[in-house]
Amino acid sequence: MDFDSFLNAHRADHLERLQQFLRYPSISALSEHKADVRACAEFVAREAARAGLEHVQILETDGYPVVYADWLHAPGKATVLVYGHYDVQPVDPLDQWHTPPFDPLIRDGRIYARGASDDKGQVFMHLASFEALLKTSGSLPVNVKLCIEGEEEIGSPHLAGLLAQQLDRFRADAVVISDTTMLGPNRPAVCYGLRGLAGLQIDVRGPAHDLHSGLYGGGVQNPIHALVELLASMHRPDGRVAIEGFYDDVAPVSDEERRALAELGADEAAIAADLGVPALYGEAGYSFTERTWIRPTLEVNGIYGGFQGEGTKTVIPATAHAKITCRLVPNQDPLRILDLVEQHVQRHTPPGVTVSVTRRETGKPYVTPFDHPVIRAAAQAYERAYGTAASFTRMGGSIPIVETLDRLLQAPVVMMGFGLNDENFHAPNEHFSLENFDKGMRALCHLWKGLADWRP
Amino acid sequence: MDFDSFLNAHRADHLERLQQFLRYPSISALSEHKADVRACAEFVAREAARAGLEHVQILETDGYPVVYADWLHAPGKATVLVYGHYDVQPVDPLDQWHTPPFDPLIRDGRIYARGASDDKGQVFMHLASFEALLKTSGSLPVNVKLCIEGEEEIGSPHLAGLLAQQLDRFRADAVVISDTTMLGPNRPAVCYGLRGLAGLQIDVRGPAHDLHSGLYGGGVQNPIHALVELLASMHRPDGRVAIEGFYDDVAPVSDEERRALAELGADEAAIAADLGVPALYGEAGYSFTERTWIRPTLEVNGIYGGFQGEGTKTVIPATAHAKITCRLVPNQDPLRILDLVEQHVQRHTPPGVTVSVTRRETGKPYVTPFDHPVIRAAAQAYERAYGTAASFTRMGGSIPIVETLDRLLQAPVVMMGFGLNDENFHAPNEHFSLENFDKGMRALCHLWKGLADWRP
Repeated sequence: MDFDSFLNAHRADHLERLQQFLRYPSISALSEHKADVRACAEFVAREAARAGLEHVQILETDGYPVVYADWLHAPGKATVLVYGHYDVQPVDPLDQWHTPPFDPLIRDGRIYARGASDDKGQVFMHLASFEALLKTSGSLPVNVKLCIEGEEEIGSPHLAGLLAQQLDRFRADAVVISDTTMLGPNRPAVCYGLRGLAGLQIDVRGPAHDLHSGLYGGGVQNPIHALVELLASMHRPDGRVAIEGFYDDVAPVSDEERRALAELGADEAAIAADLGVPALYGEAGYSFTERTWIRPTLEVNGIYGGFQGEGTKTVIPATAHAKITCRLVPNQDPLRILDLVEQHVQRHTPPGVTVSVTRRETGKPYVTPFDHPVIRAAAQAYERAYGTAASFTRMGGSIPIVETLDRLLQAPVVMMGFGLNDENFHAPNEHFSLENFDKGMRALCHLWKGLADWRP
Repeated sequence: MDFDSFLNAHRADHLERLQQFLRYPSISALSEHKADVRACAEFVAREAARAGLEHVQILETDGYPVVYADWLHAPGKATVLVYGHYDVQPVDPLDQWHTPPFDPLIRDGRIYARGASDDKGQVFMHLASFEALLKTSGSLPVNVKLCIEGEEEIGSPHLAGLLAQQLDRFRADAVVISDTTMLGPNRPAVCYGLRGLAGLQIDVRGPAHDLHSGLYGGGVQNPIHALVELLASMHRPDGRVAIEGFYDDVAPVSDEERRALAELGADEAAIAADLGVPALYGEAGYSFTERTWIRPTLEVNGIYGGFQGEGTKTVIPATAHAKITCRLVPNQDPLRILDLVEQHVQRHTPPGVTVSVTRRETGKPYVTPFDHPVIRAAAQAYERAYGTAASFTRMGGSIPIVETLDRLLQAPVVMMGFGLNDENFHAPNEHFSLENFDKGMRALCHLWKGLADWRP
């Protein structure tokens, strides 16, 4: 039996086990889900053992654990580290989900659940590819190590420390990650660049307690007014970020690369219609693809202050708050960007309030040479499974650990994802295409076989 | 026994009944408290009957009922209508209350509870003053009507209709309201002007659902960015409201009145220290007293959009929202102000989103001639109870019904309040001074006696 027949024969079993995986509400950002996240790690460990991997271990950190496993019986062959994550994003606004986020539903060729696409579905496919090859041929074409963490959605605060501390355990010739998207249905894409991340929170403090806006309105600075003035000062009318020095370190992108991006042919009218916005909007002088892949941004992810209930409450709140993340491109340094934002806040703090900045997660931007043999092997594996040539793309999202893996392991990182852009990662009604689930498991099997002849 | 002895003898009983009043969570803005608000109306009716008033009725409206009662056995004397409200503001943020808001606590000469000062404590004092005079002398010096409503904190949407429909029932020669503040401890003040109110909500709508801010950040307008830009455009750097035409109808205030306000001698450094702000802030060219009494404002009372939980969520939200109230001065018209704000929103809506404006409550500003005999009688009554001359003030808050009462009844409205500015109305830990509770009941008895000789 070849791996393709094996995957066909076990499809119902795979879908059942994927649904078990998706039932864990493993939200790393919310402390009330602590037990769920840990239970999910144990599930991954059991599945790794079931696939035939060895030395399965749950490696503790000061946060959530990392699941390790390996199969190292291919002497003389390359060693590949597979990275993924079993934690998921929060699910609010819950009332916008059509079905409960942790009660998976299969409908119209898709599986709906938080984590279906990002990243449980894709982690599961790797385990299934190893299982298929081991159960049908008794061995893998390459040596394999598994590193599945539980803190990706909160910026991987403990993984780098663990990797640095146990470098020999994790050492590999290449890293493969499936946590990115294809260009569209049947348009596979190897991703060679990611934006970095720099997160912060701004807290504005005014009066010691909430005040009646009739009695005090006009006489004290309203923390909400101070916050909106401060936030509005961070963008210019042309869509550029107005933080002083923000673009200083941005590496120029060659005309050749911009031409290649243009040739991918994004249909901006169709994108606007898909997203339901009256028009796309962004930095003047750049296309949608460029704005989201090769240009840095500053986005307010949340804002809150004062009364949010039904009706009216005539109040000047004591405080107002905003959560911000910047997306960064080579060669911006997240720590320097946080410095610049903090300086901007200090320079632009309106009178009558105090403002504090709390730094949150950071991740460096990453690009890899797109003619590396492992990148080419990934493109070939896609082509065999999908019957169509793969594209080479960059991505607007951040996987901060990518840059860390590259730096610590000194190994190229291949991002070979199977998600689609409309699959609502981080949003209500996240789902994953079962066509990509099926073809993706085959593409991964082709990749492991394709790397058999590679000598690093 | 005179009324003073009666009040002394019944103090414990009065405090016990006031606490019963304060235990009703009669929050008119929140529909889950519907039964509590109605139960509170019934309590007021029982207390009016107990005080010796007659024709006690709970008058139904399309919202919460109005408690009516009267005592009309003083032929040839003036008729005074007492207005107040038994509803209260919401209590969030609940975690900032030191004791539960609806479990009254007496400590250090104060009674703590939502509604203690605004306005249950002051409504109770009126009932106690009638009880004291009726029980000690068998009659009142004037004819009295009672009108205690349950929708003041949501802008009195049904009271004007009821008054217009039953004008004969409510007709009076003067209206007395105790829902304002004194200038400070032992500084009684008759209030002769109130700011008006115009409320609205702004809803910004961007993508059809929340988007991943890594994948889409920079490529679509973020509704939070659009909202903060829009809100920031509503004020100028000098603290003035930047809505086109906002100040057009503001009646000039005479130099004489500005001098009188200055002579009240507000200590701005002490106010800033009391409020806990680094500095006072407001419209250039005006004092704190002027900014809060005679100048109009636009205040954002609440803002919300995107992620507010613990940690980070990298999201571009589908929507963002703000709640706004303007405080207005003579001769601004609330409906025209709402028109102007709506036009401003239309003119300044950023690209890539749609914005809608929902109109909420309105109330006209009000001033009364400050040499009216009823105003002077109130000042004398204060002086008898407090042993110190009363001041004549305006107030930053709004009691929209004041303008309505004046217009419908064609009668002067006397605002004779017993609150203090630091008593946290509309905020956590609302409280009321028992010294003003005690002196205030006596001041009201003096007022009724002082009006015995007035012929309208």
